Amino acid sequence: MDQRIAEKFRSLQDHICSELEKLDGKSKFQEDIWVREEGGGGRTRTLANGNVIQKGGVAFSEVFGPVTELMAKQLNLSGTSFYATGVSIVLHPENPFYPIIHMNVRYFEMDTGVFWFGGGIDLTPHYIVPEHAGIFHRSLKEVCDKYNDSFYPKFKNWADDYFYLPHRDETRGVGGIFYDHLTDESGLSKDQLIEFALDLGRLFPKVYSEQVKLNRNKSFNDDNISWRNHRRGRYVEFNLVHDRGTKFGLLSGGRTESILLSMPPQAEWTYCHQPEKDSAEEKTLNHLEKNIDWVNC
Amino acid sequence: MDQRIAEKFRSLQDHICSELEKLDGKSKFQEDIWVREEGGGGRTRTLANGNVIQKGGVAFSEVFGPVTELMAKQLNLSGTSFYATGVSIVLHPENPFYPIIHMNVRYFEMDTGVFWFGGGIDLTPHYIVPEHAGIFHRSLKEVCDKYNDSFYPKFKNWADDYFYLPHRDETRGVGGIFYDHLTDESGLSKDQLIEFALDLGRLFPKVYSEQVKLNRNKSFNDDNISWRNHRRGRYVEFNLVHDRGTKFGLLSGGRTESILLSMPPQAEWTYCHQPEKDSAEEKTLNHLEKNIDWVNC
Repeated sequence: MDQRIAEKFRSLQDHICSELEKLDGKSKFQEDIWVREEGGGGRTRTLANGNVIQKGGVAFSEVFGPVTELMAKQLNLSGTSFYATGVSIVLHPENPFYPIIHMNVRYFEMDTGVFWFGGGIDLTPHYIVPEHAGIFHRSLKEVCDKYNDSFYPKFKNWADDYFYLPHRDETRGVGGIFYDHLTDESGLSKDQLIEFALDLGRLFPKVYSEQVKLNRNKSFNDDNISWRNHRRGRYVEFNLVHDRGTKFGLLSGGRTESILLSMPPQAEWTYCHQPEKDSAEEKTLNHLEKNIDWVNC
Repeated sequence: MDQRIAEKFRSLQDHICSELEKLDGKSKFQEDIWVREEGGGGRTRTLANGNVIQKGGVAFSEVFGPVTELMAKQLNLSGTSFYATGVSIVLHPENPFYPIIHMNVRYFEMDTGVFWFGGGIDLTPHYIVPEHAGIFHRSLKEVCDKYNDSFYPKFKNWADDYFYLPHRDETRGVGGIFYDHLTDESGLSKDQLIEFALDLGRLFPKVYSEQVKLNRNKSFNDDNISWRNHRRGRYVEFNLVHDRGTKFGLLSGGRTESILLSMPPQAEWTYCHQPEKDSAEEKTLNHLEKNIDWVNC
């Protein structure tokens, strides 16, 4: 088990929490340490009712043990025992003009010696501003390009396909990058793959602070809040119906409160909810599409 | 295709909507007629912001066509074409002391001539009062007993098992009855099985009106509303993560807005949300268990 990586992920969690507390300027993270019966455990940190973040979670976990039948089937694993470590984040801001953001970096290793990395960052603005999505995507591309020119285009399309609600024919937001099963067959050494994950992790508080600053002090009214809550409803739908990590975690007996950190503080549903014609809300819906060239926005 | 049943289900929808409008005393149902590309369609009725019902749906559908690969696999069907009709209801009241209620009756037929019925009614109080749950269960038992003495105990246990959130180790509410694949092998003729479904349908507005009257004019404060919204969050979790009908509907390209009629108007999530010791909220949590003998409460 390559426990160096867990140690680096722990430091990454510390760094991100510290940066997010600076951004928020009011609330502090609370920590829960938990132990997994079958092996390992985690360090779940949550922040609530801040100046910026209404509900946010930054979770570290390091779990290991025998591969159950469910895991073998759902994750298509061969081997009898596994080791996994990662950092997962979802932030729900109060201001509807600030976006929801999600990040995950993870490492997986089997007793057979096979290992791989996965991860991603994606942005879900309640109100899409194409120029701001462009800034976000260019930052992701810059980090990806340091490692491999093919990463950004490949991982950007992967995010478009992954963060998608087929039952709504909507993307979750403006996407970002998503990757899985990344190994040394990518041309990068294991140390470089670790560095890639950490670079993305360190980028996370920077890009989020930037997105907040772009909309800083934008005032909002009850209609904006209602729209935010309806978009949060879609976020719930994606995470509970489609997100593989959430579904697998809940079905396999993971720690429910850590898995459902991604849930928003509130959400709303209205039958056949439709924004007004030519409104900012309608423009947002029109941007919830795959294959938008955000880098050039 | 036994279209008599669809005709009876349409009348049942009319009857239930009319009774619920009387109960509500303020809002009226709005109707959407929709057509399914592959065959059939439906009549979705919704009511919002009433005196009693904050968000409710009473949906009729009659759909048919070829059995897709997904259907064959998920529903374990043999045959090349199917016919299905049913009425589905979920009501979310505004007053936290009124319960959420759900009902479904459905009929399924294959081109091979095989047919079966399914359905159920279950109650999800935000605040559980055992005596009120007892009244509800005794009404269900009375209707079941008219048809077969074994129905209530069997279908009550089935509801306990079905309306259950394993990731919370909680039942959704105080249960009710649930049944599926009910055929003439039950000892009842097809006509009797139809009558059983209709009897349950006609019972629905009666038992719900009764539950409302038991708590009529009970005033509530912001804490009660917050608790209601957290319980609604659990309702969302059950429906999106576990409910077979919802999952199958969304994955198979059903009409999203009709399937998600069950979503509450609002829901809330708080990390590790816990009620105060010995509060009414904590007592409710302690009743979210299988195998409670509600009939004798």
